[in-house]
Amino acid sequence: MTIGTAATPVIDCLQYANWSEKIFEQLRAGGVDAVHVTIAYHETFREAVINVGQWNAWFERHRDLIFQGRTGDDVRRAAAEGRTAVFFGFQNPSPIEDDISLVEIWHTLGARFMQLSYNNQSLLATGCYEAEDPGITRFGRQVIGEMNRVGMVIDMSHSAERSTLEAIEISQRPIAITHANPHWWHPALRNKSDTVLRELTRSGGMLGFSLYPHHLKGGSACTLDGFCSMIAEAANRYGVENLGIGSDLCQDQPDSIVTWMRNGRWSKQMDYGEGSADSAGFPDQPDWFRDNTGFPAIAAGLAKAGFDASETAAIMGGNWLRFYDTSFGPQA
Amino acid sequence: MTIGTAATPVIDCLQYANWSEKIFEQLRAGGVDAVHVTIAYHETFREAVINVGQWNAWFERHRDLIFQGRTGDDVRRAAAEGRTAVFFGFQNPSPIEDDISLVEIWHTLGARFMQLSYNNQSLLATGCYEAEDPGITRFGRQVIGEMNRVGMVIDMSHSAERSTLEAIEISQRPIAITHANPHWWHPALRNKSDTVLRELTRSGGMLGFSLYPHHLKGGSACTLDGFCSMIAEAANRYGVENLGIGSDLCQDQPDSIVTWMRNGRWSKQMDYGEGSADSAGFPDQPDWFRDNTGFPAIAAGLAKAGFDASETAAIMGGNWLRFYDTSFGPQA
Repeated sequence: MTIGTAATPVIDCLQYANWSEKIFEQLRAGGVDAVHVTIAYHETFREAVINVGQWNAWFERHRDLIFQGRTGDDVRRAAAEGRTAVFFGFQNPSPIEDDISLVEIWHTLGARFMQLSYNNQSLLATGCYEAEDPGITRFGRQVIGEMNRVGMVIDMSHSAERSTLEAIEISQRPIAITHANPHWWHPALRNKSDTVLRELTRSGGMLGFSLYPHHLKGGSACTLDGFCSMIAEAANRYGVENLGIGSDLCQDQPDSIVTWMRNGRWSKQMDYGEGSADSAGFPDQPDWFRDNTGFPAIAAGLAKAGFDASETAAIMGGNWLRFYDTSFGPQA
Repeated sequence: MTIGTAATPVIDCLQYANWSEKIFEQLRAGGVDAVHVTIAYHETFREAVINVGQWNAWFERHRDLIFQGRTGDDVRRAAAEGRTAVFFGFQNPSPIEDDISLVEIWHTLGARFMQLSYNNQSLLATGCYEAEDPGITRFGRQVIGEMNRVGMVIDMSHSAERSTLEAIEISQRPIAITHANPHWWHPALRNKSDTVLRELTRSGGMLGFSLYPHHLKGGSACTLDGFCSMIAEAANRYGVENLGIGSDLCQDQPDSIVTWMRNGRWSKQMDYGEGSADSAGFPDQPDWFRDNTGFPAIAAGLAKAGFDASETAAIMGGNWLRFYDTSFGPQA
């Protein structure tokens, strides 16, 4: 089985690069048929629309390399045409502000994933850095229903434990954790408990494995073998069919961006998030995954870790494609 | 002692009327020297600025009756000049959005009170209609510090119990519950527990007694004697010096406004708040307090309930004036 065809595309379900023609070319060089890109960390509705405008300019200028993805079939089209389908998502619900009608409007504009909270408490749910997690709020319950209705995926990558479990329970459609790793492999605050991962996958939800060094055992020194062995153990625990990649690649970003991601406009003090005063910037990527050309090596690593060709193809993108097919349209 | 002089002004620390020349005249007819008016329920920064613009137009047109208040001395000036000083406040922190720098900007624009949450979970604290109350959030702790610094009063009128107790504890300056009554008198969800009222007043914070029927024992049929007897009992429990009036008068508002207050943009279903499907609109005011001309009757009622002239003057405005004097400037 050849990976990177319309039948078995490669999908990375989270990146936040400092986008450029070089990176769009690397997406193709790495055989990436679809990528979910973050268009909002703390942006309001209007500010996130500015980011859509920027993407539209890139789609117009680089139409040989990228186009906006809205459905699973757009991934197949991208693979067939040798381009990359770009799907929009938010890491925070700030673009819907306090307005439930913005869920449908954002779906029309192409948003397909929305985290219910980033690191802090949101109007909808709790983030993983809060001391207390009361679960999904009154507004959050209504927004989950609305996201289910229109076909926008609930993403709990940065959310706290109880909020995540409640989102899985309240949502009538499977949800996603687009970019995180198991806490049993590397006990970072952002990585997910075995309980969450069992409930997530049992309910048809997807986990995208992260390649962000703070989520990796050994950090920047994490080996490809170690990463793929972790995936093998996850497959033993949760099955292969709900696993994929969400690299969290933040390529070519200046350190000012990670400061923005962590501090937004909410903090007068410096919040270091997963970093520290001594290590405040973006950590170095592992040498086997510095950019999008690293995807074939991951596929090879999965094969070496014991996955057969079909399983490897599923993890590299087939599972996300099935999830995209069933998640992005109106509720049945 | 004559109430309604520069030495003993009358202050109502919460109204949300459908403002008109008639109501501005009634403020003077009722001897109201200062009023805290709500300029935001769910408004964003920009939307709340529109409401400031509307007030500026009223200040220009009705300068014989009203002007913008910014300090305690503006209350004395209003009483001396026979006008009413109008102080701005928010019932929800939506006008600061997710941006801590907007606290100081709003103080410059004249905002003197901000509720950390309305009925729902906010980015800062929990509202009284949420099932769970995790207390003050990470952003909330920073905002409390910033409000303390610039001189904006933390108002927890619609907040949940734990969030309120934590706000009292975290704030380095006394806070306010501008409009609510004791739960022991009328067990409405919006009324406050004895624990909250003890901690509030013990720390120098102020309680404004509400005349909104859903907060009154007997509702619209509540008697003036009953209301003033409750204040007498509150004075026994908490002392006279931290009690005032915050009528929550919503005069001349159409019922569409209470629907906006309760539902904002967050709900696709109808939320009835303190009302019900059978009683969805604004309740009728008690016949002894239909508009601002009812304040002298309250002063008389307090005297009848046993307060001496000095105590009555304190409750009718003197206590709020002391609080305004010490709360609206930069932190010492």
